[in-house]
Amino acid sequence: MSDIDPDVLREIFAAAPFIASLGIQLESAGSGECRTRLDLRPEHLQQNGVVHAGVIASMADHTAGGAAASVLGPGLYPLTASFTINLLRAASGESLACRANVLKAGRTLIVAESEVSASAGGKNVLVAKAVVTLAVIARRA
Amino acid sequence: MSDIDPDVLREIFAAAPFIASLGIQLESAGSGECRTRLDLRPEHLQQNGVVHAGVIASMADHTAGGAAASVLGPGLYPLTASFTINLLRAASGESLACRANVLKAGRTLIVAESEVSASAGGKNVLVAKAVVTLAVIARRA
Amino acid sequence: MSDIDPDVLREIFAAAPFIASLGIQLESAGSGECRTRLDLRPEHLQQNGVVHAGVIASMADHTAGGAAASVLGPGLYPLTASFTINLLRAASGESLACRANVLKAGRTLIVAESEVSASAGGKNVLVAKAVVTLAVIARRA
Amino acid sequence: MSDIDPDVLREIFAAAPFIASLGIQLESAGSGECRTRLDLRPEHLQQNGVVHAGVIASMADHTAGGAAASVLGPGLYPLTASFTINLLRAASGESLACRANVLKAGRTLIVAESEVSASAGGKNVLVAKAVVTLAVIARRA
Repeated sequence: MSDIDPDVLREIFAAAPFIASLGIQLESAGSGECRTRLDLRPEHLQQNGVVHAGVIASMADHTAGGAAASVLGPGLYPLTASFTINLLRAASGESLACRANVLKAGRTLIVAESEVSASAGGKNVLVAKAVVTLAVIARRA
Repeated sequence: MSDIDPDVLREIFAAAPFIASLGIQLESAGSGECRTRLDLRPEHLQQNGVVHAGVIASMADHTAGGAAASVLGPGLYPLTASFTINLLRAASGESLACRANVLKAGRTLIVAESEVSASAGGKNVLVAKAVVTLAVIARRA
Repeated sequence: MSDIDPDVLREIFAAAPFIASLGIQLESAGSGECRTRLDLRPEHLQQNGVVHAGVIASMADHTAGGAAASVLGPGLYPLTASFTINLLRAASGESLACRANVLKAGRTLIVAESEVSASAGGKNVLVAKAVVTLAVIARRA
Repeated sequence: MSDIDPDVLREIFAAAPFIASLGIQLESAGSGECRTRLDLRPEHLQQNGVVHAGVIASMADHTAGGAAASVLGPGLYPLTASFTINLLRAASGESLACRANVLKAGRTLIVAESEVSASAGGKNVLVAKAVVTLAVIARRA
Protein backbone atom coordinates (compact mmCIF):
# COMPACT_ATOMS: atom_id res chain seq x y z
CA MET A 1 0.00 0.00 0.00
CA SER A 2 1.40 3.33 -1.03
CA ASP A 3 0.23 6.93 -0.84
CA ILE A 4 2.68 7.97 -3.54
CA ASP A 5 1.56 9.36 -6.87
CA PRO A 6 1.82 6.22 -9.05
CA ASP A 7 3.04 8.19 -12.06
CA VAL A 8 5.88 9.67 -10.07
CA LEU A 9 6.84 6.32 -8.61
CA ARG A 10 6.84 4.61 -11.99
CA GLU A 11 9.03 7.30 -13.44
CA ILE A 12 11.42 7.19 -10.52
CA PHE A 13 12.11 3.50 -10.83
CA ALA A 14 11.13 1.62 -13.98
CA ALA A 15 11.61 4.60 -16.26
CA ALA A 16 15.07 5.58 -15.01
CA PRO A 17 17.47 3.93 -17.46
CA PHE A 18 20.43 3.95 -15.08
CA ILE A 19 18.49 2.33 -12.25
CA ALA A 20 16.95 -0.26 -14.60
CA SER A 21 20.39 -0.99 -16.04
CA LEU A 22 21.86 -1.51 -12.56
CA GLY A 23 18.95 -3.83 -11.72
CA ILE A 24 17.67 -1.92 -8.68
CA GLN A 25 14.08 -2.98 -8.00
CA LEU A 26 11.40 -1.19 -6.01
CA GLU A 27 10.00 -3.26 -3.15
CA SER A 28 7.66 -0.74 -1.52
CA ALA A 29 7.12 2.99 -1.07
CA GLY A 30 4.73 5.10 0.95
CA SER A 31 4.35 7.38 3.97
CA GLY A 32 7.93 8.63 3.77
CA GLU A 33 9.60 5.23 3.47
CA CYS A 34 10.96 3.32 0.50
CA ARG A 35 12.59 -0.09 0.16
CA THR A 36 14.59 -1.42 -2.78
CA ARG A 37 16.58 -4.54 -3.61
CA LEU A 38 19.47 -5.38 -5.92
CA ASP A 39 20.58 -8.88 -6.92
CA LEU A 40 24.35 -8.62 -7.22
CA ARG A 41 26.03 -9.31 -10.54
CA PRO A 42 29.71 -9.29 -11.55
CA GLU A 43 29.45 -5.83 -13.09
CA HIS A 44 28.55 -4.33 -9.71
CA LEU A 45 31.94 -5.16 -8.28
CA GLN A 46 35.26 -3.49 -7.62
CA GLN A 47 38.49 -5.10 -8.78
CA ASN A 48 38.81 -6.81 -5.39
CA GLY A 49 35.42 -8.53 -5.58
CA VAL A 50 33.45 -6.26 -3.25
CA VAL A 51 30.58 -4.09 -4.40
CA HIS A 52 31.69 -0.72 -5.81
CA ALA A 53 30.90 2.32 -3.67
CA GLY A 54 29.21 3.86 -6.70
CA VAL A 55 26.63 1.07 -6.82
CA ILE A 56 25.85 1.46 -3.14
CA ALA A 57 25.70 5.25 -3.44
CA SER A 58 23.36 5.04 -6.45
CA MET A 59 21.04 2.73 -4.52
CA ALA A 60 21.09 4.91 -1.39
CA ASP A 61 20.41 8.05 -3.41
CA HIS A 62 17.65 6.64 -5.54
CA THR A 63 15.84 4.95 -2.65
CA ALA A 64 15.94 8.25 -0.74
CA GLY A 65 14.33 9.79 -3.82
CA GLY A 66 11.56 7.20 -3.62
CA ALA A 67 10.97 7.97 0.06
CA ALA A 68 10.90 11.70 -0.69
CA ALA A 69 8.50 11.25 -3.62
CA SER A 70 6.11 9.41 -1.31
CA VAL A 71 5.48 12.56 0.74
CA LEU A 72 5.04 14.95 -2.19
CA GLY A 73 1.75 16.04 -3.67
CA PRO A 74 0.86 15.74 -7.35
CA GLY A 75 2.95 17.78 -9.75
CA LEU A 76 6.02 17.78 -7.49
CA TYR A 77 9.10 15.59 -7.60
CA PRO A 78 12.35 15.35 -5.65
CA LEU A 79 15.78 16.12 -7.08
CA THR A 80 18.96 15.23 -5.18
CA ALA A 81 20.89 18.36 -4.18
CA SER A 82 23.61 16.62 -2.15
CA PHE A 83 24.31 13.49 -0.21
CA THR A 84 26.88 12.09 2.19
CA ILE A 85 27.53 8.38 2.35
CA ASN A 86 29.61 6.43 4.84
CA LEU A 87 30.79 3.04 3.63
CA LEU A 88 30.84 1.15 6.92
CA ARG A 89 31.90 -2.31 5.82
CA ALA A 90 32.92 -4.08 2.62
CA ALA A 91 29.82 -5.30 0.78
CA SER A 92 29.59 -8.73 -0.80
CA GLY A 93 27.07 -11.55 -1.04
CA GLU A 94 23.98 -12.31 -3.10
CA SER A 95 22.01 -9.10 -2.80
CA LEU A 96 21.73 -5.62 -1.34
CA ALA A 97 18.67 -4.18 0.36
CA CYS A 98 18.07 -0.49 1.01
CA ARG A 99 15.58 1.22 3.27
CA ALA A 100 15.17 5.00 3.17
CA ASN A 101 13.01 7.18 5.35
CA VAL A 102 12.25 10.88 5.41
CA LEU A 103 13.74 12.80 8.36
CA LYS A 104 12.26 16.15 7.41
CA ALA A 105 9.74 17.10 4.73
CA GLY A 106 9.90 20.82 4.06
CA ARG A 107 8.23 22.79 1.33
CA THR A 108 11.43 23.28 -0.64
CA LEU A 109 13.81 20.69 0.90
CA ILE A 110 13.42 17.09 1.98
CA VAL A 111 16.05 15.26 4.05
CA ALA A 112 16.05 11.47 4.01
CA GLU A 113 18.42 8.83 5.31
CA SER A 114 19.19 5.49 3.69
CA GLU A 115 20.66 2.31 5.09
CA VAL A 116 22.10 -0.32 2.77
CA SER A 117 22.67 -3.87 3.95
CA ALA A 118 24.23 -6.83 2.17
CA SER A 119 22.83 -10.33 2.40
CA ALA A 120 25.29 -13.23 2.22
CA GLY A 121 24.31 -16.77 3.10
CA GLY A 122 21.23 -15.64 4.97
CA LYS A 123 23.06 -13.08 7.10
CA ASN A 124 22.45 -9.33 6.76
CA VAL A 125 25.14 -6.76 7.45
CA LEU A 126 24.76 -2.97 7.44
CA VAL A 127 27.27 -1.77 4.84
CA ALA A 128 26.46 1.90 4.32
CA LYS A 129 24.49 4.81 5.65
CA ALA A 130 23.66 7.95 3.70
CA VAL A 131 21.91 11.24 4.35
CA VAL A 132 20.37 12.79 1.25
CA THR A 133 19.14 16.37 0.77
CA LEU A 134 16.58 16.73 -2.02
CA ALA A 135 15.06 19.83 -3.56
CA VAL A 136 11.33 19.86 -4.29
CA ILE A 137 10.76 20.65 -7.96
CA ALA A 138 7.56 21.49 -9.81
CA ARG A 139 6.92 19.23 -12.77
CA ARG A 140 6.40 21.08 -16.00
CA ALA A 141 3.03 20.43 -17.66
CA MET B 1 53.38 10.39 -17.29
CA SER B 2 52.53 9.03 -13.88
CA ASP B 3 54.33 8.29 -10.62
CA ILE B 4 51.63 5.84 -9.60
CA ASP B 5 52.29 2.15 -9.12
CA PRO B 6 51.15 0.78 -12.51
CA ASP B 7 49.68 -2.35 -10.99
CA VAL B 8 47.54 -0.32 -8.64
CA LEU B 9 46.39 1.99 -11.40
CA ARG B 10 45.49 -0.87 -13.72
CA GLU B 11 43.48 -2.51 -11.00
CA ILE B 12 41.72 0.70 -10.08
CA PHE B 13 40.45 1.35 -13.58
CA ALA B 14 40.51 -1.39 -16.22
CA ALA B 15 40.07 -4.20 -13.73
CA ALA B 16 37.10 -2.68 -11.89
CA PRO B 17 34.06 -4.29 -13.52
CA PHE B 18 31.63 -1.56 -12.45
CA ILE B 19 33.81 1.23 -13.80
CA ALA B 20 34.47 -0.63 -17.04
CA SER B 21 30.76 -1.32 -17.38
CA LEU B 22 29.91 2.36 -16.91
CA GLY B 23 32.54 3.28 -19.49
CA ILE B 24 34.65 5.55 -17.28
CA GLN B 25 38.10 5.91 -18.85
CA LEU B 26 41.34 6.99 -17.22
CA GLU B 27 42.93 10.02 -18.88
CA SER B 28 45.88 10.63 -16.56
CA ALA B 29 47.06 10.09 -13.00
CA GLY B 30 50.08 11.19 -11.01
CA SER B 31 51.35 13.49 -8.27
CA GLY B 32 48.06 13.56 -6.43
CA GLU B 33 45.87 14.30 -9.44
CA CYS B 34 43.69 12.11 -11.64
CA ARG B 35 41.53 12.84 -14.68
CA THR B 36 38.82 10.64 -16.17
CA ARG B 37 36.28 10.86 -18.96
CA LEU B 38 32.90 9.28 -19.70
CA ASP B 39 31.11 9.32 -23.04
CA LEU B 40 27.44 9.54 -22.15
CA ARG B 41 25.06 6.76 -23.19
CA PRO B 42 21.31 6.36 -22.68
CA GLU B 43 21.79 4.01 -19.72
CA HIS B 44 23.53 6.78 -17.78
CA LEU B 45 20.37 8.86 -17.62
CA GLN B 46 17.52 9.59 -15.26
CA GLN B 47 13.92 9.33 -16.44
CA ASN B 48 14.00 13.05 -17.32
CA GLY B 49 17.01 12.76 -19.62
CA VAL B 50 19.70 14.16 -17.35
CA VAL B 51 22.61 12.11 -16.05
CA HIS B 52 21.77 10.13 -12.90
CA ALA B 53 23.39 11.35 -9.68
CA GLY B 54 24.70 7.82 -9.15
CA VAL B 55 26.77 7.97 -12.34
CA ILE B 56 28.27 11.30 -11.35
CA ALA B 57 28.93 10.09 -7.80
CA SER B 58 30.60 6.90 -9.07
CA MET B 59 32.88 8.95 -11.32
CA ALA B 60 33.73 11.46 -8.58
CA ASP B 61 34.48 8.67 -6.09
CA HIS B 62 36.56 6.53 -8.44
CA THR B 63 38.60 9.43 -9.78
CA ALA B 64 39.36 10.51 -6.21
CA GLY B 65 40.57 6.95 -5.66
CA GLY B 66 42.91 7.35 -8.63
CA ALA B 67 44.30 10.59 -7.25
CA ALA B 68 44.79 8.99 -3.83
CA ALA B 69 46.48 5.93 -5.33
CA SER B 70 48.97 8.21 -7.08
CA VAL B 71 50.43 9.34 -3.75
CA LEU B 72 50.67 5.89 -2.13
CA GLY B 73 53.74 3.72 -2.01
CA PRO B 74 53.86 0.13 -3.22
CA GLY B 75 51.68 -2.35 -1.36
CA LEU B 76 49.14 0.27 -0.32
CA TYR B 77 45.81 1.16 -1.87
CA PRO B 78 42.98 3.59 -1.07
CA LEU B 79 39.49 2.54 0.00
CA THR B 80 36.63 5.06 0.15
CA ALA B 81 35.43 5.57 3.72
CA SER B 82 32.91 8.34 2.98
CA PHE B 83 32.12 11.05 0.51
CA THR B 84 29.87 14.05 0.15
CA ILE B 85 28.71 15.19 -3.25
CA ASN B 86 26.87 18.36 -4.22
CA LEU B 87 25.00 18.18 -7.50
CA LEU B 88 25.27 21.77 -8.63
CA ARG B 89 23.52 21.72 -11.98
CA ALA B 90 21.65 19.20 -14.14
CA ALA B 91 24.14 17.26 -16.29
CA SER B 92 23.55 16.52 -19.94
CA GLY B 93 25.52 16.57 -23.19
CA GLU B 94 28.02 14.31 -24.92
CA SER B 95 30.47 13.53 -22.14
CA LEU B 96 31.55 14.07 -18.56
CA ALA B 97 35.05 14.91 -17.40
CA CYS B 98 36.30 14.57 -13.84
CA ARG B 99 39.41 15.98 -12.20
CA ALA B 100 40.35 14.93 -8.67
CA ASN B 101 43.20 16.19 -6.53
CA VAL B 102 44.49 15.26 -3.10
CA LEU B 103 43.89 17.85 -0.38
CA LYS B 104 45.65 15.91 2.36
CA ALA B 105 47.72 12.75 2.25
CA GLY B 106 48.02 11.24 5.70
CA ARG B 107 49.41 7.90 6.73
CA THR B 108 45.99 6.39 7.39
CA LEU B 109 43.61 8.83 5.68
CA ILE B 110 43.64 10.66 2.37
CA VAL B 111 41.21 13.47 1.54
CA ALA B 112 40.63 14.33 -2.12
CA GLU B 113 38.19 16.56 -3.93
CA SER B 114 36.62 15.90 -7.33
CA GLU B 115 34.98 18.22 -9.81
CA VAL B 116 32.76 16.83 -12.54
CA SER B 117 31.89 18.88 -15.60
CA ALA B 118 29.60 18.12 -18.51
CA SER B 119 30.46 18.95 -22.10
CA ALA B 120 27.60 19.84 -24.44
CA GLY B 121 28.18 21.35 -27.86
CA GLY B 122 31.70 22.43 -26.96
CA LYS B 123 30.70 24.14 -23.72
CA ASN B 124 31.80 22.83 -20.33
CA VAL B 125 29.71 23.29 -17.21
CA LEU B 126 30.66 22.34 -13.64
CA VAL B 127 27.91 19.93 -12.54
CA ALA B 128 29.16 18.46 -9.27
CA LYS B 129 31.76 18.76 -6.57
CA ALA B 130 32.66 16.01 -4.12
CA VAL B 131 34.97 15.60 -1.16
CA VAL B 132 36.12 12.01 -0.60
CA THR B 133 37.76 10.51 2.50
CA LEU B 134 39.77 7.37 1.79
CA ALA B 135 41.41 4.93 4.17
CA VAL B 136 44.91 3.67 3.33
CA ILE B 137 44.88 -0.12 3.24
CA ALA B 138 47.76 -2.59 3.07
CA ARG B 139 47.47 -4.99 0.17
CA ARG B 140 47.62 -8.61 1.21
CA ALA B 141 50.43 -10.58 -0.40
CA MET C 1 27.76 3.34 34.46
CA SER C 2 30.46 3.56 31.86
CA ASP C 3 33.08 1.28 30.35
CA ILE C 4 35.05 4.26 29.08
CA ASP C 5 38.54 5.06 30.29
CA PRO C 6 37.77 7.74 32.91
CA ASP C 7 40.88 9.73 32.06
CA VAL C 8 39.89 9.94 28.44
CA LEU C 9 36.34 10.90 29.29
CA ARG C 10 37.42 13.62 31.69
CA GLU C 11 39.73 15.05 29.11
CA ILE C 12 37.08 14.94 26.43
CA PHE C 13 34.57 16.95 28.40
CA ALA C 14 35.60 18.89 31.49
CA ALA C 15 39.11 19.57 30.23
CA ALA C 16 38.09 20.86 26.79
CA PRO C 17 38.02 24.64 27.19
CA PHE C 18 35.71 25.24 24.23
CA ILE C 19 33.15 22.70 25.42
CA ALA C 20 33.30 23.99 28.99
CA SER C 21 32.92 27.54 27.71
CA LEU C 22 29.85 26.61 25.65
CA GLY C 23 28.37 24.88 28.71
CA ILE C 24 27.97 21.41 27.16
CA GLN C 25 27.65 18.86 29.97
CA LEU C 26 28.22 15.13 29.86
CA GLU C 27 25.19 13.11 30.94
CA SER C 28 26.42 9.55 30.29
CA ALA C 29 28.85 7.58 28.17
CA GLY C 30 29.56 3.91 27.63
CA SER C 31 29.21 0.96 25.27
CA GLY C 32 29.33 3.12 22.17
CA GLU C 33 26.78 5.69 23.29
CA CYS C 34 27.09 9.17 24.74
CA ARG C 35 24.54 11.73 25.91
CA THR C 36 25.10 15.43 26.55
CA ARG C 37 23.00 18.43 27.49
CA LEU C 38 23.27 22.19 27.00
CA ASP C 39 21.22 24.82 28.82
CA LEU C 40 20.69 27.55 26.25
CA ARG C 41 22.02 31.04 26.87
CA PRO C 42 21.81 34.24 24.79
CA GLU C 43 25.35 33.78 23.43
CA HIS C 44 24.32 30.50 21.75
CA LEU C 45 21.95 32.30 19.40
CA GLN C 46 21.87 33.61 15.88
CA GLN C 47 20.75 37.18 15.18
CA ASN C 48 17.18 35.88 14.65
CA GLY C 49 16.96 34.24 18.07
CA VAL C 50 17.45 30.61 17.06
CA VAL C 51 20.45 28.54 18.12
CA HIS C 52 23.47 28.99 15.84
CA ALA C 53 24.34 26.03 13.62
CA GLY C 54 27.87 26.18 15.00
CA VAL C 55 26.65 25.45 18.54
CA ILE C 56 24.62 22.48 17.33
CA ALA C 57 27.51 21.21 15.21
CA SER C 58 29.95 21.53 18.12
CA MET C 59 27.62 19.53 20.34
CA ALA C 60 27.00 16.84 17.69
CA ASP C 61 30.72 16.51 17.00
CA HIS C 62 31.85 16.41 20.61
CA THR C 63 29.17 13.95 21.71
CA ALA C 64 30.16 11.66 18.84
CA GLY C 65 33.70 11.89 20.18
CA GLY C 66 32.43 10.76 23.58
CA ALA C 67 30.64 7.79 22.03
CA ALA C 68 33.76 6.87 20.05
CA ALA C 69 36.00 7.18 23.11
CA SER C 70 33.75 4.74 24.96
CA VAL C 71 34.72 1.91 22.59
CA LEU C 72 38.47 2.57 22.58
CA GLY C 73 41.04 0.81 24.70
CA PRO C 74 43.53 2.60 26.97
CA GLY C 75 46.07 4.82 25.23
CA LEU C 76 43.79 5.57 22.28
CA TYR C 77 41.57 8.56 21.62
CA PRO C 78 39.29 9.69 18.78
CA LEU C 79 39.97 12.71 16.58
CA THR C 80 37.30 14.06 14.23
CA ALA C 81 38.33 13.68 10.59
CA SER C 82 35.09 14.93 9.02
CA PHE C 83 31.43 15.33 9.70
CA THR C 84 28.23 16.13 7.90
CA ILE C 85 25.36 17.80 9.68
CA ASN C 86 21.81 18.39 8.50
CA LEU C 87 19.97 21.18 10.31
CA LEU C 88 16.44 19.85 10.12
CA ARG C 89 14.48 22.48 12.01
CA ALA C 90 15.16 25.83 13.70
CA ALA C 91 16.29 25.23 17.29
CA SER C 92 15.01 27.26 20.20
CA GLY C 93 13.82 26.66 23.75
CA GLU C 94 15.42 26.05 27.14
CA SER C 95 17.95 23.34 26.34
CA LEU C 96 19.47 21.00 23.77
CA ALA C 97 20.07 17.30 24.26
CA CYS C 98 22.36 15.18 22.11
CA ARG C 99 22.63 11.42 21.81
CA ALA C 100 25.44 9.85 19.77
CA ASN C 101 26.02 6.20 19.02
CA VAL C 102 28.74 4.33 17.20
CA LEU C 103 27.75 2.85 13.82
CA LYS C 104 31.10 1.24 13.12
CA ALA C 105 34.18 0.80 15.29
CA GLY C 106 37.19 0.02 13.15
CA ARG C 107 40.81 -0.15 14.14
CA THR C 108 41.70 3.13 12.45
CA LEU C 109 38.29 4.75 11.86
CA ILE C 110 35.13 5.09 13.91
CA VAL C 111 31.82 6.28 12.46
CA ALA C 112 29.18 7.65 14.83
CA GLU C 113 25.89 9.43 14.36
CA SER C 114 24.47 12.16 16.56
CA GLU C 115 20.95 13.45 16.99
CA VAL C 116 20.32 16.83 18.59
CA SER C 117 16.91 17.75 19.93
CA ALA C 118 15.65 20.99 21.43
CA SER C 119 13.40 21.13 24.45
CA ALA C 120 10.88 23.98 24.66
CA GLY C 121 8.05 24.03 27.17
CA GLY C 122 8.32 20.31 27.79
CA LYS C 123 8.23 19.36 24.12
CA ASN C 124 11.24 17.81 22.36
CA VAL C 125 11.92 18.36 18.67
CA LEU C 126 14.68 16.73 16.57
CA VAL C 127 16.65 19.68 15.19
CA ALA C 128 19.76 18.12 13.64
CA LYS C 129 21.38 14.88 12.63
CA ALA C 130 25.09 14.40 12.01
CA VAL C 131 27.37 11.61 10.90
CA VAL C 132 30.92 11.91 12.22
CA THR C 133 34.05 10.08 11.02
CA LEU C 134 36.80 9.90 13.65
CA ALA C 135 40.37 8.70 13.35
CA VAL C 136 41.79 6.53 16.13
CA ILE C 137 44.95 8.13 17.49
CA ALA C 138 47.57 6.75 19.86
CA ARG C 139 48.13 8.93 22.88
CA ARG C 140 51.73 9.95 23.37
CA ALA C 141 53.19 8.85 26.70
CA MET D 1 33.73 47.20 -1.30
CA SER D 2 30.68 45.03 -1.12
CA ASP D 3 27.50 44.57 -3.12
CA ILE D 4 25.78 42.94 -0.17
CA ASP D 5 22.73 44.44 1.51
CA PRO D 6 24.37 46.21 4.48
CA ASP D 7 21.50 45.39 6.80
CA VAL D 8 21.82 41.71 6.05
CA LEU D 9 25.57 41.78 6.50
CA ARG D 10 25.37 43.59 9.80
CA GLU D 11 22.86 41.12 11.10
CA ILE D 12 24.90 38.15 9.92
CA PHE D 13 28.03 39.21 11.77
CA ALA D 14 27.87 41.85 14.48
CA ALA D 15 24.34 40.99 15.53
CA ALA D 16 24.87 37.24 15.86
CA PRO D 17 25.59 36.70 19.56
CA PHE D 18 27.36 33.39 19.05
CA ILE D 19 29.70 34.75 16.40
CA ALA D 20 30.41 37.89 18.42
CA SER D 21 31.07 35.76 21.49
CA LEU D 22 33.52 33.55 19.57
CA GLY D 23 35.27 36.67 18.27
CA ILE D 24 34.86 35.96 14.54
CA GLN D 25 35.31 39.21 12.62
CA LEU D 26 34.19 40.09 9.12
CA GLU D 27 37.04 41.16 6.84
CA SER D 28 35.19 41.55 3.53
CA ALA D 29 32.15 40.35 1.65
CA GLY D 30 30.83 40.83 -1.85
CA SER D 31 30.26 39.21 -5.24
CA GLY D 32 29.88 35.73 -3.78
CA GLU D 33 32.97 35.81 -1.59
CA CYS D 34 33.44 36.43 2.13
CA ARG D 35 36.52 36.56 4.35
CA THR D 36 36.65 36.37 8.13
CA ARG D 37 39.29 36.24 10.83
CA LEU D 38 39.51 34.91 14.38
CA ASP D 39 42.23 35.73 16.91
CA LEU D 40 42.67 32.53 18.89
CA ARG D 41 42.01 32.50 22.61
CA PRO D 42 42.29 29.71 25.20
CA GLU D 43 38.54 29.04 25.15
CA HIS D 44 38.73 28.06 21.48
CA LEU D 45 40.85 25.02 22.24
CA GLN D 46 40.46 21.30 22.75
CA GLN D 47 41.93 19.62 25.80
CA ASN D 48 45.11 18.91 23.80
CA GLY D 49 45.74 22.54 22.89
CA VAL D 50 44.56 22.51 19.28
CA VAL D 51 41.54 24.46 18.09
CA HIS D 52 38.24 22.62 18.61
CA ALA D 53 36.54 21.32 15.46
CA GLY D 54 33.39 23.14 16.56
CA VAL D 55 35.13 26.52 16.37
CA ILE D 56 36.43 25.77 12.89
CA ALA D 57 33.05 24.46 11.77
CA SER D 58 31.27 27.55 13.14
CA MET D 59 33.65 29.81 11.24
CA ALA D 60 33.35 27.83 8.00
CA ASP D 61 29.56 27.79 8.23
CA HIS D 62 29.13 31.45 9.10
CA THR D 63 31.57 32.69 6.47
CA ALA D 64 29.74 30.62 3.86
CA GLY D 65 26.58 32.39 5.03
CA GLY D 66 28.29 35.72 4.41
CA ALA D 67 29.29 34.68 0.90
CA ALA D 68 25.76 33.47 0.19
CA ALA D 69 24.20 36.67 1.55
CA SER D 70 26.37 38.67 -0.84
CA VAL D 71 24.56 37.23 -3.87
CA LEU D 72 21.02 37.63 -2.54
CA GLY D 73 18.68 40.47 -3.31
CA PRO D 74 16.95 42.59 -0.66
CA GLY D 75 14.48 40.79 1.59
CA LEU D 76 16.25 37.43 1.26
CA TYR D 77 18.72 35.75 3.58
CA PRO D 78 20.56 32.42 3.66
CA LEU D 79 19.95 29.68 6.22
CA THR D 80 22.30 26.70 6.52
CA ALA D 81 20.56 23.46 5.58
CA SER D 82 23.60 21.17 5.85
CA PHE D 83 27.35 21.18 5.68
CA THR D 84 30.24 18.78 5.48
CA ILE D 85 33.60 19.67 6.91
CA ASN D 86 36.92 17.87 6.58
CA LEU D 87 39.46 18.66 9.28
CA LEU D 88 42.65 18.28 7.30
CA ARG D 89 45.30 19.17 9.85
CA ALA D 90 45.44 20.08 13.55
CA ALA D 91 44.94 23.85 13.95
CA SER D 92 47.01 25.97 16.27
CA GLY D 93 48.73 29.34 16.22
CA GLU D 94 47.73 32.96 16.65
CA SER D 95 44.73 33.23 14.36
CA LEU D 96 42.43 31.55 11.85
CA ALA D 97 41.38 32.98 8.52
CA CYS D 98 38.45 31.77 6.45
CA ARG D 99 37.56 32.42 2.84
CA ALA D 100 34.23 31.26 1.43
CA ASN D 101 32.98 31.48 -2.12
CA VAL D 102 29.71 30.58 -3.79
CA LEU D 103 29.82 27.55 -6.09
CA LYS D 104 26.22 27.77 -7.18
CA ALA D 105 23.58 30.41 -6.57
CA GLY D 106 20.13 28.99 -7.22
CA ARG D 107 16.77 30.52 -6.49
CA THR D 108 16.09 28.26 -3.52
CA LEU D 109 19.53 26.79 -2.73
CA ILE D 110 23.04 28.21 -2.56
CA VAL D 111 26.15 26.04 -2.34
CA ALA D 112 29.34 27.59 -1.02
CA GLU D 113 32.71 26.23 -0.02
CA SER D 114 34.92 27.47 2.78
CA GLU D 115 38.60 27.07 3.45
CA VAL D 116 40.02 27.69 6.92
CA SER D 117 43.71 28.25 7.45
CA ALA D 118 45.69 28.73 10.64
CA SER D 119 48.46 31.27 10.98
CA ALA D 120 51.37 30.41 13.29
CA GLY D 121 54.59 32.40 13.34
CA GLY D 122 53.89 33.92 9.94
CA LYS D 123 53.14 30.61 8.24
CA ASN D 124 49.68 29.73 6.95
CA VAL D 125 48.40 26.16 6.82
CA LEU D 126 45.10 24.95 5.34
CA VAL D 127 43.37 23.21 8.25
CA ALA D 128 39.83 22.55 7.01
CA LYS D 129 37.59 22.60 3.99
CA ALA D 130 33.80 22.67 4.09
CA VAL D 131 30.95 22.61 1.61
CA VAL D 132 27.79 24.33 2.84
CA THR D 133 24.27 24.08 1.43
CA LEU D 134 22.06 27.05 2.31
CA ALA D 135 18.36 27.60 1.76
CA VAL D 136 17.19 30.99 0.54
CA ILE D 137 14.61 32.39 2.94
CA ALA D 138 12.31 35.39 2.60
CA ARG D 139 12.64 37.86 5.43
CA ARG D 140 9.39 38.62 7.17
CA ALA D 141 8.42 42.29 7.10
